[in-house]
Amino acid sequence: MVSADILERLSATLASRRGSDPATSYVAKLFHKGTDEILKKVGEEAVETIMAAKDGDKLHIVREVADLWFHTLVLLEHIGLSHEDVLAELARREGISGIDEKNARKEL
Amino acid sequence: MVSADILERLSATLASRRGSDPATSYVAKLFHKGTDEILKKVGEEAVETIMAAKDGDKLHIVREVADLWFHTLVLLEHIGLSHEDVLAELARREGISGIDEKNARKEL
Amino acid sequence: MVSADILERLSATLASRRGSDPATSYVAKLFHKGTDEILKKVGEEAVETIMAAKDGDKLHIVREVADLWFHTLVLLEHIGLSHEDVLAELARREGISGIDEKNARKEL
Amino acid sequence: MVSADILERLSATLASRRGSDPATSYVAKLFHKGTDEILKKVGEEAVETIMAAKDGDKLHIVREVADLWFHTLVLLEHIGLSHEDVLAELARREGISGIDEKNARKEL
Repeated sequence: MVSADILERLSATLASRRGSDPATSYVAKLFHKGTDEILKKVGEEAVETIMAAKDGDKLHIVREVADLWFHTLVLLEHIGLSHEDVLAELARREGISGIDEKNARKEL
Repeated sequence: MVSADILERLSATLASRRGSDPATSYVAKLFHKGTDEILKKVGEEAVETIMAAKDGDKLHIVREVADLWFHTLVLLEHIGLSHEDVLAELARREGISGIDEKNARKEL
Repeated sequence: MVSADILERLSATLASRRGSDPATSYVAKLFHKGTDEILKKVGEEAVETIMAAKDGDKLHIVREVADLWFHTLVLLEHIGLSHEDVLAELARREGISGIDEKNARKEL
Repeated sequence: MVSADILERLSATLASRRGSDPATSYVAKLFHKGTDEILKKVGEEAVETIMAAKDGDKLHIVREVADLWFHTLVLLEHIGLSHEDVLAELARREGISGIDEKNARKEL
């Protein structure tokens, strides 16, 4: 089983790149470009996830979902949040199941 | 710190809903509707994440990213994969840093 | 050949529905819900266009592109613009061709 | 009033670029890259339309909607269709109004 610690290590890496020279890394460059560029990447990876799923290529789907999660982590770090906020939100919803879950989500 | 075990518990819950009566839960209904409906939800949550980020509402952003991750987990389960495949892909990329990371991603 | 006057008639219809009772039409309801709901529809129809194109179903593609154009017209009307602004922008670009066109678009 | 003939001229231009050297124009290059690249552009321009609308910048919105329409025209030409098919579909729906319109669209 793969440890979910990768999310923690990844978030730490992202945090370390804030404010660093844009020329030194892809993420530093993305932080430098700002929110709009990060959001375009989120949109792009969502579209690529959908296209990969239509192709039914499992390896490709995994890579695109990883790209999508990665860029949402960049977004979170950019606004001072992290994967922990998302995991906490998912945990908060746990236990709300079945049709009730849909209703709960609608209230969000 | 929030434990990332939530992803594992969530995946287990999703797996348990495969093949169950669509009337019993939101997820069972989504599995029943099939890939296209799941993909529409992925697209919808990506758009809502982008809109929430443009609004700058942190609480809303976290909820939309949670919705986005949730529906990618539904997609993964629907095609016989799970969060572990995504975490393994993210771990595989670890250590590939800086500008090289971008190049590595381009190769994908 | 289909007359492009349909865009003009459609815009006139959309304009006539502004401020009318939300219960009387789909468009009046959409105007009433506001910008975010209109934008969600634009995102939704873009995703459905992409999915239809992946399926290679021409009839479906035409319907989804029509839905997409329709909701961008609703957006334009909602902010006091119309199809004429889009056609004028496309006409403005005319004559800028080849690789130069890409450069011109990049400047936008 | 801007003549909608621009759509016809634009479609003729797009048609003339099919099969031409990818190095000679942005559109020829896009046709050469194929459906997936065209669809990524459709997704990208939809996201940029949404972001421009959230910013409330009218000039930017018009440019992004023009970009979005433009790339849907490229898609249509790529699969042997044109703006006329979309206009015909919009004309077909004309006269179906109010709440009925929504129901009609749902049947699509």
